[in-house]
Amino acid sequence: MSKQTKANLLGAGVKKEEDFSEWYTNVITRSEMIDYYDISGCYILRPWAYSIWEQIQAFFDAEIKKLDVQNAYFPLLVSEKALTTEKDHIEGFAPEVAWVTKSGDSTLADPVAIRPTSETIMYPAYANWIRSHRDLPLKLNQWVNVVRWEFKRPVPFLRSREFLWQEGHTAFSTKEEADQEVYTILDLYRRVYEDLLAVPMVKGVKSEKEKFAGGLYTTTIEGFIPTNGRGIQAATSHCLGQNFSKMFNIEFENDKGGKSFAWQNSWGLTTRTIGVMIMVHGDDKGLVLPPRISPIQAVVIPLHFKDGDTAAVDAKAKELVAQLKAAGVRAHLDDRPNYNPGHKYNHWELKGVPVRIEIGPKDLAANRVVCCRRDTAAKSNVELGDAFVSSIQSLLDEIQKNLFAKAVQERNNHVSYIKEWSEFLPALDLKHLVMAPWCEQVVCEDQIKKKSSEESKNKADEEKGFCLTGAAKSLCIPLEGQEHVKIPTIEEGTKCFCCDRKATKYTLFGRSY
Amino acid sequence: MSKQTKANLLGAGVKKEEDFSEWYTNVITRSEMIDYYDISGCYILRPWAYSIWEQIQAFFDAEIKKLDVQNAYFPLLVSEKALTTEKDHIEGFAPEVAWVTKSGDSTLADPVAIRPTSETIMYPAYANWIRSHRDLPLKLNQWVNVVRWEFKRPVPFLRSREFLWQEGHTAFSTKEEADQEVYTILDLYRRVYEDLLAVPMVKGVKSEKEKFAGGLYTTTIEGFIPTNGRGIQAATSHCLGQNFSKMFNIEFENDKGGKSFAWQNSWGLTTRTIGVMIMVHGDDKGLVLPPRISPIQAVVIPLHFKDGDTAAVDAKAKELVAQLKAAGVRAHLDDRPNYNPGHKYNHWELKGVPVRIEIGPKDLAANRVVCCRRDTAAKSNVELGDAFVSSIQSLLDEIQKNLFAKAVQERNNHVSYIKEWSEFLPALDLKHLVMAPWCEQVVCEDQIKKKSSEESKNKADEEKGFCLTGAAKSLCIPLEGQEHVKIPTIEEGTKCFCCDRKATKYTLFGRSY
Repeated sequence: MSKQTKANLLGAGVKKEEDFSEWYTNVITRSEMIDYYDISGCYILRPWAYSIWEQIQAFFDAEIKKLDVQNAYFPLLVSEKALTTEKDHIEGFAPEVAWVTKSGDSTLADPVAIRPTSETIMYPAYANWIRSHRDLPLKLNQWVNVVRWEFKRPVPFLRSREFLWQEGHTAFSTKEEADQEVYTILDLYRRVYEDLLAVPMVKGVKSEKEKFAGGLYTTTIEGFIPTNGRGIQAATSHCLGQNFSKMFNIEFENDKGGKSFAWQNSWGLTTRTIGVMIMVHGDDKGLVLPPRISPIQAVVIPLHFKDGDTAAVDAKAKELVAQLKAAGVRAHLDDRPNYNPGHKYNHWELKGVPVRIEIGPKDLAANRVVCCRRDTAAKSNVELGDAFVSSIQSLLDEIQKNLFAKAVQERNNHVSYIKEWSEFLPALDLKHLVMAPWCEQVVCEDQIKKKSSEESKNKADEEKGFCLTGAAKSLCIPLEGQEHVKIPTIEEGTKCFCCDRKATKYTLFGRSY
Repeated sequence: MSKQTKANLLGAGVKKEEDFSEWYTNVITRSEMIDYYDISGCYILRPWAYSIWEQIQAFFDAEIKKLDVQNAYFPLLVSEKALTTEKDHIEGFAPEVAWVTKSGDSTLADPVAIRPTSETIMYPAYANWIRSHRDLPLKLNQWVNVVRWEFKRPVPFLRSREFLWQEGHTAFSTKEEADQEVYTILDLYRRVYEDLLAVPMVKGVKSEKEKFAGGLYTTTIEGFIPTNGRGIQAATSHCLGQNFSKMFNIEFENDKGGKSFAWQNSWGLTTRTIGVMIMVHGDDKGLVLPPRISPIQAVVIPLHFKDGDTAAVDAKAKELVAQLKAAGVRAHLDDRPNYNPGHKYNHWELKGVPVRIEIGPKDLAANRVVCCRRDTAAKSNVELGDAFVSSIQSLLDEIQKNLFAKAVQERNNHVSYIKEWSEFLPALDLKHLVMAPWCEQVVCEDQIKKKSSEESKNKADEEKGFCLTGAAKSLCIPLEGQEHVKIPTIEEGTKCFCCDRKATKYTLFGRSY
C-alpha cells in the first residue's frame, strides 16, 4: 500500500455494487487484512486476517480432536516418484506444481516438488504404519501451507498461489466408517461457515466430472457471492475409496486373517473461508465481521467535549473495557489522543468491528453508553450497571444471527428453480444459482459447459458486453433435508433440463470462482 | 520403519553410551516420534512428536501475546531481489537456499527462493507500514516452516533441511526498547527449555564471528549433550540494530518531527527443542519425557490375574483415568486385550510416559495402585480415595523437578574452568564444555578453531581415532548472574587463554552441533 491521503482511506472508496473488484481490493488492504507482495498470487496475511484464521483453527482443531484425529507434520517437499504414483491424481495437479531444481548454485540431482496437497507425501508412510486392523482407524491432520502455481487471475484469499489450510487424511477398515466420517467432517465445515462466519452453505456431492482427481466421491459445501452471482466451492471432504491404498499398497491383515486395502478419506479447509466471508458481508463502508470471529468484538470510544469531565469519561471507558474482557468479550479501548471521534468511527467501521460503544460526559451523567451496530448502523442506549456486559453479549449474539439470516435470505432470493434449458441462461444472467433436474451424465455436463459458454458469449456480443459471460458448471448435487435451502424431489417422469435423458437428481448449477 | 520383530522393538535396542547415533535413530523411530522420508534431510513429525511442539507453541504463543506480539503470515517464497538486499545476510544463507525454477513444464521467468528465514520477506512491507513513531512498536510473529538445504549430515530435529519454527520480527523507535525485548524473549526461550523440557541452558551473547549475519548482536541460549560432549545452540534472539532498516528504508517520523531508522529485532525457536530434550533425558529403554510436555502424563494399565475380578479392575482403571482427566492430567487407559502387561510396560517406557499406574485385583482389594516412575524406575503404592489425584500430580511435579536437577548436575559436571591453552584440548576430550577467560577478538577465535582442529586431528592420528575430533568454537559469552551455572569474573591482569591479549570475558567454548 503506498501512502494515501486520509480521505481515500475512509471507507471502501468505491461502492460494492459498482466495482466489486476494486471494492474488494480496497477493503482487504485498507482494513489491514492483506498486503500485496512482489510475487504475483502471493499475499501477506496481516494480523487482522490471521487472527480470524486462528479463531477458525481453534474451533475446528478442538472438534476434530474430539473425533480422535491427531495433528502431525509431513514434509513440504515431495519426490517426483511419490508425486506421480497415482496417475489421475497427478494429472489433476501437474500443471500447477512448483519444482525446486537448485540449492544455492548447485543443480539438484533429483528435482523435488512443493506440496500442492499431501496424499502422495503421506501414503507411503501409511503403508508402513498400517499392518493390522488394530492399526486402524488412522486419523491424522496437519495445518500447513501449500503451493499451486495457478495461471488464472489470482484473487486474494480465494485463489492464491500459496494458501494455508488443514488437510485431514484418514484410513479405515471399512467403507462404512469412511463414509460416515466424510459427512461428519462436511458438517463441521458447514458449521465453520454458518456458525462462525455467518455464511450459508449448500451441502452436496460433486458430479463425476467435478470430483477430486483420484478419489471415489467428493462431498462439498458451496457458497454464493450475491454481488457477482458466482458460486464458490467452500470446502471439500473426499472419500478416496481404495484407489490410493491400492496404488500405495496400504494393505492390512483384517480381523478374519485375510488381507484388505484400507478405505481412505481426505478433507481440507483453507483461508478461502476469510475471502468468502468478506465478500458476503462487507459493505460500502468496509468489512462487516461476524462477532464470533472478529478480532475485536466491541470498541469503546471515549468522547471529550469542552467543559466535560474528560478524566471521568476516560476512567469509565477503561473500566467498561476491563469488565467486557473479564467476561470474555474481545473489547478494545480506542483512546488515541491524536484522532477525532469521526476518524475513529470510520476506522473501526472499515475494519468491521461489530459493536462501537461511545461514552461522553452526558452519557456518563445518565449512566449509559451509546451502542452502534456495524451490521445495521442502528444506535441504542445501553444502561450501565449489572446488566451492561450481558446486554453487549446479547447484542453480539443478535448481530451474529442477523448477519446469517440476511445472508440466507439474499442467497435464497438468488436461486432459480428451473425445468428447461431455455430458462438456464436467463436465470444465470440474473446473477442466480440454478437448481435444475439433471441426468448426472458426464457427456451432459460437457454440453452444459459448452452451450452456456457459447450462448452467453453470443448474447454478450449482441448486447455489447453488458451481461455476464462464462461457462456454468454443476456446483453440487445437494443432499436432502437441508435446513436453509429448498431441495425439490424429482417427480416421476421428469426429464433432464438439458438433454433427453431421465432426470435423477436436482442439481445446483452456477457460474463459479 | 520396516517390519521388525517384537524383540527388536523393545527398548532402544542399543545402549545410549555405546552407540549414541544408532540409539538416537532407534529411539525416535521406535517411539513413533519421527519417520524417515524419501528426501534426505526431511522427516515426518508423527503425533507423538508434534503434540510436544503443540505444547511448546501453546506456552510461547500465550507469553508473546502478553507482550502484544501479533501473529501473521508472510509468503513462503521470496524474489531474488528482496532476498539479496542485505549483503551480509544473504552471504550467510546463499549456499543453502532452495530455488523454485519451474511450474509444471514451464520455466519461471524469475526464479523464486523458499524462505530460509523471513527478514527479507517482511521488511519491504514494514517499510510501507511504518511511517510515524505512532506506528511503533510493530511486533509480529509467525509459526511456519523454513527450508535450508544444508549439506552437512542431517540429524532429525537438530539439523534438517526443512524445520518448523516461530520467527518474531519487531521494530522500535529506540535502541533501548529493542535491547529490552531481546532479553525478554531470550528468557522466554530459557523457560521453554528449563521449565517445560527440563533442559538447562546457559544464556549469553554470541561472539562477533558467530553472530547472525547482518545483525548488530545475537543473544543465545546454549544447551549441552553429555553423551557426546557437544554444545548445541538452542535458540537465538537477535538485535538487528538499524542495518536492515537502512537497507529496506524503514524510516519514520520521530516525535521531534525528524526522520529516524527503526531499531529491529528478530528471534526464533525451532523443533530442535524436541531433539535436544530427547538426547538429554533419554535412556537405554527409550524416551524419558518431562511431564509438562508429555502427550500422555500417566498411563493406567489394568492387570488381569486368574481368578481375579477382571471386570472390577477394569471398571476401577477406567474410573481413575476419568478422575485424572477431569483434573487436567493427560491420562490414558491401556486396556488393549491383545497385549500382555510386560509388553505394555516396555511400550510406554519406550515412549517415555512419566508415570505408569498398575492396578490388579490385590491392589483393588487394598484400595491402592502401584505407580512406577519413568525417570528413576522407582515403584510406590499410592492410596486410592480423595488424595489420589493430588498424589499423582505431586509425583508428576517431582519428576519434572528431578529431571531438571539431574540434567543441571550432569551439565555442570561437564564444564571445565581453565586458564591456559594447554588445558583446552584435554578438557574437550573429557567431553567437557570449557569456560575460559578470553579476549573476544575475531583473529583469536580463528586461531582457536584452527588450533583445536589440528591438534585434535594429530592426537586422533596418534591414538588411532580413539578420541573426539573436530574444531571447537565459542558458544557464547555468558551473561552474569545465572542461577544454575557459575560464571567467574575476570580478575585484573588476566590474559586470554589462547593469545597474549588481555582477557575481557569468561567465555563458553565447546565442540558443537
